[in-house]
Amino acid sequence: MKEPIITLLSDFGTVDGFVGAMKGVILSLAPGARIIDLSHDIPAQDIRGGAWALREAAPLFPVGTIHVTVVDPGVGTERRPLLLESGGQSFIGPDNGVLTLAAREDCRAWSLEDAQYFRPQVSATFHGRDIFAPVAGHLAAGKDPSVFGPEIERWRRLPLPEPVVGQSKIEGQVIHVDRFGNLITNIPSGTLTGETAWRVNWREVDIGPIRRTFGDVASGAWVAYPGSSGMLELGIRDGRAASKHQEQDLYAVVSVCAGD
Amino acid sequence: MKEPIITLLSDFGTVDGFVGAMKGVILSLAPGARIIDLSHDIPAQDIRGGAWALREAAPLFPVGTIHVTVVDPGVGTERRPLLLESGGQSFIGPDNGVLTLAAREDCRAWSLEDAQYFRPQVSATFHGRDIFAPVAGHLAAGKDPSVFGPEIERWRRLPLPEPVVGQSKIEGQVIHVDRFGNLITNIPSGTLTGETAWRVNWREVDIGPIRRTFGDVASGAWVAYPGSSGMLELGIRDGRAASKHQEQDLYAVVSVCAGD
Amino acid sequence: MKEPIITLLSDFGTVDGFVGAMKGVILSLAPGARIIDLSHDIPAQDIRGGAWALREAAPLFPVGTIHVTVVDPGVGTERRPLLLESGGQSFIGPDNGVLTLAAREDCRAWSLEDAQYFRPQVSATFHGRDIFAPVAGHLAAGKDPSVFGPEIERWRRLPLPEPVVGQSKIEGQVIHVDRFGNLITNIPSGTLTGETAWRVNWREVDIGPIRRTFGDVASGAWVAYPGSSGMLELGIRDGRAASKHQEQDLYAVVSVCAGD
Repeated sequence: MKEPIITLLSDFGTVDGFVGAMKGVILSLAPGARIIDLSHDIPAQDIRGGAWALREAAPLFPVGTIHVTVVDPGVGTERRPLLLESGGQSFIGPDNGVLTLAAREDCRAWSLEDAQYFRPQVSATFHGRDIFAPVAGHLAAGKDPSVFGPEIERWRRLPLPEPVVGQSKIEGQVIHVDRFGNLITNIPSGTLTGETAWRVNWREVDIGPIRRTFGDVASGAWVAYPGSSGMLELGIRDGRAASKHQEQDLYAVVSVCAGD
Repeated sequence: MKEPIITLLSDFGTVDGFVGAMKGVILSLAPGARIIDLSHDIPAQDIRGGAWALREAAPLFPVGTIHVTVVDPGVGTERRPLLLESGGQSFIGPDNGVLTLAAREDCRAWSLEDAQYFRPQVSATFHGRDIFAPVAGHLAAGKDPSVFGPEIERWRRLPLPEPVVGQSKIEGQVIHVDRFGNLITNIPSGTLTGETAWRVNWREVDIGPIRRTFGDVASGAWVAYPGSSGMLELGIRDGRAASKHQEQDLYAVVSVCAGD
Repeated sequence: MKEPIITLLSDFGTVDGFVGAMKGVILSLAPGARIIDLSHDIPAQDIRGGAWALREAAPLFPVGTIHVTVVDPGVGTERRPLLLESGGQSFIGPDNGVLTLAAREDCRAWSLEDAQYFRPQVSATFHGRDIFAPVAGHLAAGKDPSVFGPEIERWRRLPLPEPVVGQSKIEGQVIHVDRFGNLITNIPSGTLTGETAWRVNWREVDIGPIRRTFGDVASGAWVAYPGSSGMLELGIRDGRAASKHQEQDLYAVVSVCAGD
């Protein structure tokens, strides 16, 4: 690709020069690169939130896109810097699980080890600028993944809770809270189709049957609906479901039962 | 245009992958498109705030620009997806009033109805990704507006309050609060020129004569001045005018009287 | 350069159309320009914060890059609009100190005075849109710096505190707080190498020896380490150093003493 697309996803916020520094490094190595911000407002050090945002956005980009994802609480420790190739795209980031949801079956992985592709001085706290951005720049400029380090078999994947699917009951969990305060569960909407009249419960709330969207309930009412990410979601029409609970309570069990 | 410009304006925030998902859809359909973020921090579901930000930015872009605006509390209900062509630019978004201030006299409108230009599965909650972004991509790739659906005569415009202009008194309203806490009114600065010595009142505050800018009053003092959007604005030097009042009080009547 | 890079750094936030307006002006004058957001979340009117973010990011961009920096509490007063050329890059912004850290020894400066390169109507409150963006556009389109106004010798530089370096003690100050709550000092890490066993004190906290990174202390413990900006930094592992103190206390003296 003549003008490769490089996306950036981080928890750096934009109060500092961190994000700008990464962009400068990339453009100095790959002057034609087109840089696309996915988000820099992942909550600080929230690996799972970063993994989720990457899952929502990356698959929609063209083949050849390079995704740089930096949510990196372990920067400067032994955790490896990582390059994945999966589904025709490249993923660069720390080996701490943040790339978990980017990997498809065809995924190959490399450990980033050859310092000639890093910045001359690698700091202990900002590998986004010193390792991940320069590797993205070199990759965009045409380098082969194998130059950066050895191909590896094992890398770290987040242990994500799986829903328990029974005959007339499915038990899952809230796994993400979005910007509007809606609760995304790990129950695929596809398991809830058919003729069964499902009823949804989350904590002490009887949310009722699964609706098509918010417009199907009254303002202020709870609603369960098939979310845009393919998962069952819980929300409050014209309100924030998340604001009703302590953060530690949010990720509670969701049970969906066949009604009658 | 070889490399069309597509701007994005939304209330999605950047904590999630929503914005990135839209960018991926656009770039997959129009690989040469240049994506420009206007804002993703419009307050959630604030249609008027989105309309105002679009008014401030869109007219300054080149002819041929495609603007995608998604502030969409009614997503999944009967509200139509809309395409406007106005002033040589294109505007894509929900038919809920958010495009009101983009329309000039030459404005033409189409209802987006042909699902072959949407994503294969249209969710009930994320038309930004499933309808608006793909239509923008197809438009950027050269499709004619008429392919997406029928041209329509009527679409929804926000009822915006108009100032009441008398001989020696103008009564308007605050219609927007900006990031610095300044209050933007609906009174065009152009109506306040000439030899008349105007005095400005807003709620219980006697703001005094109209000044050129903040530097003309002492730190901490109220000031009324011709704002950068062509409207009279109210502010506090080195302070936030908005923080002095409850939100419901902000949008109060502003009266400007000829003094002596 | 065929497609010049123009970076934007401001305290405008992204709740309004301010940033979008600047982008529209630039792209109308230099349609091929590639716009890169550095940050728009510099705290409102924080000149020093803007100067610091520019220092972190700008030097990493390619020669030929144009940086537009707008943190401008004095807009509409007598402060001049400024263009610097330094290190092969261009810097545009108000003459209030925000460009201080961009200047290298080869720096030349021009006062922006020729209104034919501004927008036809220059507002008193939004020079980002009316002066800085159009000058950036004209510069990107190939204009020479000298067309905008006279070259000048003196422009405003921030008085930045310098550390006092003694035989066995260095006294500096905290000069920036980053997004993670870490405290960046004005003590270059390079002065702290060698065989001396330094100990760091900040306010009432005995932070101990200088470590390589956060991983070298226990969770919740204070740590002093060479930061990614080349300066000594103070932080708390898995915590926010800044949140432990009032803002006015943060910028206190840091002393580093040779231990035994």
